[in-house]
Amino acid sequence: MGDTRQRIVNATTVLLQQRGYAATSVKDITAAAPATVGSVYHFFPGGKAELVAAVIDESGAAYRDLFELITSEVDDPADAFAHFFTSAADALEESGFVDICPIGTLAAEVASSDEALRQATQRAFASWETALTAKLVGGGLTGADAASLATTMIALIEGSFVLARSRRDADLVRRAGQHAKALIGAAQLAANRSTPLPSGSLTVA
Amino acid sequence: MGDTRQRIVNATTVLLQQRGYAATSVKDITAAAPATVGSVYHFFPGGKAELVAAVIDESGAAYRDLFELITSEVDDPADAFAHFFTSAADALEESGFVDICPIGTLAAEVASSDEALRQATQRAFASWETALTAKLVGGGLTGADAASLATTMIALIEGSFVLARSRRDADLVRRAGQHAKALIGAAQLAANRSTPLPSGSLTVA
Repeated sequence: MGDTRQRIVNATTVLLQQRGYAATSVKDITAAAPATVGSVYHFFPGGKAELVAAVIDESGAAYRDLFELITSEVDDPADAFAHFFTSAADALEESGFVDICPIGTLAAEVASSDEALRQATQRAFASWETALTAKLVGGGLTGADAASLATTMIALIEGSFVLARSRRDADLVRRAGQHAKALIGAAQLAANRSTPLPSGSLTVA
Repeated sequence: MGDTRQRIVNATTVLLQQRGYAATSVKDITAAAPATVGSVYHFFPGGKAELVAAVIDESGAAYRDLFELITSEVDDPADAFAHFFTSAADALEESGFVDICPIGTLAAEVASSDEALRQATQRAFASWETALTAKLVGGGLTGADAASLATTMIALIEGSFVLARSRRDADLVRRAGQHAKALIGAAQLAANRSTPLPSGSLTVA
């Protein structure tokens, strides 16, 4: 029974990556799993909405784990984030530009139309923010600055996935990673200053 | 007749902002415009797909004009972009967090499922990149650096809209604008350097 539930969740995840929330029906899900309509409602009495909320929760946790795994390979947060963007760009290319992380697309699609699913995407983003903030704090940033920068990093990752899929060009994700690196580096530099710099000391005549 | 066409385009734009592409039918559009099914196919023989491509083209041009208008109020590009993010945050709050720019959501939704619409979103993003690049070049950045940074800015704007709608919190868009300002400022600083800095000269003991 546990396998059936996971098969339903996995099939739904793939359909969401291919066509989004509104265009995915319970009938599509039963055909793709495969599973009976009865088994979908056995595991998810709330139907499609409850099932998709479970996909968001599971994918959200999986992407948080993936972020922690990839960035654990590199100590410095600026380099670690650039490495994460590069890995994501590789994954986009290898997938043929499918929606490798459907949570951003879902969040945009349901934000004004489904309150329970909106909250599920909010939980997923919050869990990512916690993970990204921890990596930035480990690099010397203070809590508030790190949390703000973590949110901006998530926005940049999600936005660059959308542009990359629209253009069929993953290099822009790699370049966004270089900008992310520059931004984190500048924030680390500011955090590491023990005394304020004299005005103009960063410009070179 | 021209008014009918525009009424159909405007009604479609609103429906896309509220519920996205897949959940919007020609029937919904005729009810919202209001217009007959016959008039929809008179102006858009290709039906919903052709109509939505027209919405993307018109909205894309309108948002490019809006960006140029808002950023023309501030000379320095770093400050001008921060001003744009702040204006967008205000618009998000005033709208009750509807999808103020449906092109990002559409792009994510159709990237893997509708090639003609994918190309329409690509054209819209390219026209924005041209406008943003011009503003950055006006601030002293070189063409390639400016174009790369412009793409990252569009990604950050789109991504922060998604997060803000998911959280019902526009302040994160304002904070993203401050990060955008820091990133552009750092790029301007690098572009204005007439000679390379000695290694380590930006760190303070």
